[in-house]
Amino acid sequence: MSVLPSSVEQVINEFSRLPGVGPKSASRMAYHYLRSPNKDATKLASALEEMDREVKNCKSCFNVTDKEECSICSSQLRKKDKLCVVEEPIDVVAIEKSGVYDGMYFVLGGVISPAEGIGEEELRFKELEKRVKELLEDIKEGSILEIIVATNPSLEGEATSSYITDLFKTYLREKRIKITRLAMGLPTGADLEYADRLTLKRALEGRTDI
Amino acid sequence: MSVLPSSVEQVINEFSRLPGVGPKSASRMAYHYLRSPNKDATKLASALEEMDREVKNCKSCFNVTDKEECSICSSQLRKKDKLCVVEEPIDVVAIEKSGVYDGMYFVLGGVISPAEGIGEEELRFKELEKRVKELLEDIKEGSILEIIVATNPSLEGEATSSYITDLFKTYLREKRIKITRLAMGLPTGADLEYADRLTLKRALEGRTDI
Repeated sequence: MSVLPSSVEQVINEFSRLPGVGPKSASRMAYHYLRSPNKDATKLASALEEMDREVKNCKSCFNVTDKEECSICSSQLRKKDKLCVVEEPIDVVAIEKSGVYDGMYFVLGGVISPAEGIGEEELRFKELEKRVKELLEDIKEGSILEIIVATNPSLEGEATSSYITDLFKTYLREKRIKITRLAMGLPTGADLEYADRLTLKRALEGRTDI
Repeated sequence: MSVLPSSVEQVINEFSRLPGVGPKSASRMAYHYLRSPNKDATKLASALEEMDREVKNCKSCFNVTDKEECSICSSQLRKKDKLCVVEEPIDVVAIEKSGVYDGMYFVLGGVISPAEGIGEEELRFKELEKRVKELLEDIKEGSILEIIVATNPSLEGEATSSYITDLFKTYLREKRIKITRLAMGLPTGADLEYADRLTLKRALEGRTDI
C-alpha cells in the first residue's frame, strides 16, 4: 500500500520523465507544489497547456514560434546570406544569447544517428534544400550564401555535417554557397590537463595567430 | 526581443521555481516537451490539475491524502501509542520506506525558524496538542504515548524539538507520554574523515554496545 495519493504519484511519474530528473527530484518537485499556497501547480499546468496550444514550428526555419513565421525569419534586420543549421530549437536560443550572429537559422530536428534509428528521412533535409533555394533567390545575384553547420561536436554531429556538405555539392561547385563549421577547441575556463584527446587535437589543428 | 514564444518563457519560468531547478534545466525541461510528440506536456498539466483538485490534508495527521483521513490514520494495523512528528509530508514517505515504523504520524508543516519568519503560530502545534489528547483517550488506560520527534537534524529542528518537549511538560511529568528523538550519528557509508564535528560528537555521545 502506498502512502501517497494516486494523483501525487502521477505527478511524480510525469516529472521523472523530464531530462535530468530522477525519482528523488521528481518527488521533491511534486511536494514543492503540495506545500505551496499560491496555486503554483495550476500555474504550471496552465502554462504547459498554453504552450501546447500556442507553439508551432516556424514555416521557414522550423524553430518554435507562436506565429506563422518566427521573429527571426520575419525580421528585416537579419542577414539573409547566412544560414545557421542547428539540431534543436534550444540551440537557437544558445547562439542568440552569444549576441554575435545576425543571420538566419534552420532547425534540422536532430542528427543522423543509426544507433538511435534516426536516418535522413527523420530529419528536415528536404525542407533545408527548399529553404536554401528560397534564400538563394532572396539574396543579391552574385552573392554567396553561407551555411554554418552548428550541429553538436559529436560523431553524429560530424556525420550530419558531412551529409549536408554532400547535399549541396552542386551549389558548392557552382560557388553559390559556402559551408562552414563552428570552430572546435578548448572551451573558456577549461583545464588543458583535463581536455580529451580529440578536443586537444582540434584545438591544435585550429590554432590561430596571436 | 526574445526569440522564444511567450508561452514557452512562461513554462520555463514556472519550472525554474521548482527546488533544485536552475534556468538551464528549466529550459531543457520546456524544450523536452516541445520535442516530445506524445502530448506529454498536457499529461503533466492534467496530472498537476488533478493533484491540485484531489489532494487535501488528513484531518488527523495533516499528511497529504485524497480522503478525509489518510490511509495510515484510518488503518487498524497501526499502533496508536506512537506518534512520529515530522516537518513535511515527504518525511512520512521517507520513514515509511524504511519499513520499521508502525505507529502514527503528525505533520507539523515546517520548523520554527526566526530567520525565515516562521514562528510557533505558523506551525500546527495547537493541532498537535489536540491530536495527542485524542490518542491519549484512544490508547489503553495506563499505557504511555511515545512522541518521536523526527524533525531534521538542523538548528531549527532542534529548537522545534525543544518547543515540543516544553509543550507537553505537564503530560511528561504525569508520565502519560514520553518524548524521543531520532538517533544522530554517522550515516551508512559515511567517511569518518569527512564527517563534521557535530556529527562525530553525536556519534560518540550515542555510541552503543556491540
